[in-house]
Amino acid sequence: MMATNLFDDILAHAEGEFFTDLLSRENVRIERIVSHGHASLEGFWYDQDQHEWVVVLKGAARLRFEDEIVGMKPGDFVNIPAHKKHRVEWTTPDEPTLWLAVFYTA
Amino acid sequence: MMATNLFDDILAHAEGEFFTDLLSRENVRIERIVSHGHASLEGFWYDQDQHEWVVVLKGAARLRFEDEIVGMKPGDFVNIPAHKKHRVEWTTPDEPTLWLAVFYTA
Repeated sequence: MMATNLFDDILAHAEGEFFTDLLSRENVRIERIVSHGHASLEGFWYDQDQHEWVVVLKGAARLRFEDEIVGMKPGDFVNIPAHKKHRVEWTTPDEPTLWLAVFYTA
Repeated sequence: MMATNLFDDILAHAEGEFFTDLLSRENVRIERIVSHGHASLEGFWYDQDQHEWVVVLKGAARLRFEDEIVGMKPGDFVNIPAHKKHRVEWTTPDEPTLWLAVFYTA
């Protein structure tokens, strides 16, 4: 068994948002997301069937919910219940923002 | 909703190992582990009913399996199938080692 590294290839990514499945099972999916100066498209909302626990490990971001905005710095995590609408309002243009998301069924 | 921070209170911990549940549901549990110069007790092996995906976010560690040792630095992650015996062989005494573990049923 060799460990794989979460931080590999981050700097190679250009503008935009990149998703990598790190684990994918029936009840749980762990995803790495790298955002670089990225925001969800105007008017777009995530509206997911699964719950999502998500932490920012590098960079900085703002998540928008219908009723509030949550600022995220490295180490900050939130739990987003299924079908709670959210969007990425902003990620810093200064460096890549690394998210680790755990999607799960309760 | 306010984000909680993964790195809070790390330095407050003394020698040993400290566990905090960040999320606990039927099929998934997310746990923060802070180890400081810690090794599993002589002869002790974890032998878990759930699978465990685990990443080191700070510090350094060595995980021992029955047939090999895996070195872990920040960002390194491994997936440990249920009942695959393992133990913490070593974590650095120089700083706290922060693990994020996702326990799940397939």
